[in-house]
Amino acid sequence: MKILLQFPEGLKQYALEYAKKLEKEGNEVFISASPTFGACDLALDEARSIGADKLIHFGHAEFKHVDFNVEYVEYRIDASLDALEKSIGELEQYKRIGLVTTVQHIHQLGKIKEFYEKHGKEVLIGKPYGFAKYNGQILGCDVGSAATINNDVECFVYFGGGLFHPLGAVYATTKPFLAIDPFAGKWLWLDTYREKRKEEEKRVLVRASDAKRFGILVSTKIGQYNMELAKLLKSRIEKEGLEAAILVANTFDFDSLNNMMEIDAFVNTACPRIATDDYERLRKPLLSPDLLMELLKSKEEAKRSSQSQS
Amino acid sequence: MKILLQFPEGLKQYALEYAKKLEKEGNEVFISASPTFGACDLALDEARSIGADKLIHFGHAEFKHVDFNVEYVEYRIDASLDALEKSIGELEQYKRIGLVTTVQHIHQLGKIKEFYEKHGKEVLIGKPYGFAKYNGQILGCDVGSAATINNDVECFVYFGGGLFHPLGAVYATTKPFLAIDPFAGKWLWLDTYREKRKEEEKRVLVRASDAKRFGILVSTKIGQYNMELAKLLKSRIEKEGLEAAILVANTFDFDSLNNMMEIDAFVNTACPRIATDDYERLRKPLLSPDLLMELLKSKEEAKRSSQSQS
Repeated sequence: MKILLQFPEGLKQYALEYAKKLEKEGNEVFISASPTFGACDLALDEARSIGADKLIHFGHAEFKHVDFNVEYVEYRIDASLDALEKSIGELEQYKRIGLVTTVQHIHQLGKIKEFYEKHGKEVLIGKPYGFAKYNGQILGCDVGSAATINNDVECFVYFGGGLFHPLGAVYATTKPFLAIDPFAGKWLWLDTYREKRKEEEKRVLVRASDAKRFGILVSTKIGQYNMELAKLLKSRIEKEGLEAAILVANTFDFDSLNNMMEIDAFVNTACPRIATDDYERLRKPLLSPDLLMELLKSKEEAKRSSQSQS
Repeated sequence: MKILLQFPEGLKQYALEYAKKLEKEGNEVFISASPTFGACDLALDEARSIGADKLIHFGHAEFKHVDFNVEYVEYRIDASLDALEKSIGELEQYKRIGLVTTVQHIHQLGKIKEFYEKHGKEVLIGKPYGFAKYNGQILGCDVGSAATINNDVECFVYFGGGLFHPLGAVYATTKPFLAIDPFAGKWLWLDTYREKRKEEEKRVLVRASDAKRFGILVSTKIGQYNMELAKLLKSRIEKEGLEAAILVANTFDFDSLNNMMEIDAFVNTACPRIATDDYERLRKPLLSPDLLMELLKSKEEAKRSSQSQS
């Protein structure tokens, strides 16, 4: 069988070993070398280009059913739970806790819940909106497991490495948010990030306020492709007498976007995290669809009020 | 008609204006935002993903016939010929000149030839190997217009901007090589680059000498795809008792390659210029197919001589 292997960045170091194992079983094996950001980002173009019979995608749960033979190999990590003990002091004043994690630790969620219950806490585990597969799991584009229980909890606890996953949940909630990193054995309250994000959004709105020409990003990644939304935004921008073009790429290259010097502002319909994590790599402001609508509404209001004054 | 526009980096600034023109003619128009390095690099995956009827590719002549509706719009620049006058002094000791340029200035080649002939020179214009379309034209991967007349000329003159194009020709020739930049109104002898390149190749060979695991790069870009060569190199590496895997991507991302920490050395079958221009962005050595063969041969010789000694 002709197989293409695809690993996320942190697991690419194991690709060759895995390829050799499958070769010994009689397969012809190739490795995708493209950046891989999630199960939204299947290397289907590459698999088709080399005529592969199967794509094996590591480290993420299925995101969206596709018309290709894809095997998902989830990657589970049994992280030490020692850091939980030390977090009890931090959580002293909270009784009802919302618990979230990534797919790597989803099998540990039961034990973590038990631990906090033993310490007198009530633990809630929310449901994702639909892109994430498991209760309590969060993704860059699906923080439903946190957002849907925001009103029912007094605080959130994220268990897992890095800040990419918890920050999305922080932006979508309003309760105190503790991130516990079992690898570093440390924890961090992330609440200050909410204020920072709001400030950044305000700055982006101001920077984009005079934009005349908009570039709307559409990714061809199977789980990020949203041409319908892009067309809707384009016609909404044009209704305002402004110009817009739809810009298409698989992974967006910030140098190439910066080379489009006619564009005054970009609008993101691809992975929502491009607008929160990568906006500083663009010379021009990058708006989420929500921020664009806010911008257009305030432009309309300004127009109406200037007409009523004249 | 549903059209995808693709511009090389230097022309991306004109994309929106062109899109608006085609929209006014009743087309539905999208712009590729991916980096574009040549006509080898057609945005076919993107065109197919959005269901485009046609791809309009700007700035490059046709490279390879493909099974898709592609219109090539070459981009001609009438650059000032003033710098030629000033180059006469530089070329005083040479009678037979080989003249090369890029597709942007190919229509000016006749006038440049005339100019030098008026100044008593004999001007030769060579034929490309096959990827470039015009006599005298050079590409990153086709410097035949220079290499095939190396023995017939006393020196080379390149007319055009930048160093990307002439450097490939410099590496493939042995005669004095003058680059005339009509935009900067300057000229530069490029011969010292040959020595530098040879030194770099030696360093890469030394760094790769103990490599046990090789990653062979195959680009899915229609004009760069060379799976046959990659498979040949893989079996050649394995014959030596070493390991190899074929790594597939459209545009190679150097961070992702650096994340493949098991790989000791990379071998490039994609655009030949990755190995000469971008090798410093990789933590591990990057070999051209030729350099790999040199490495394997010297390994074999070392083995044989150690066997005959024992």
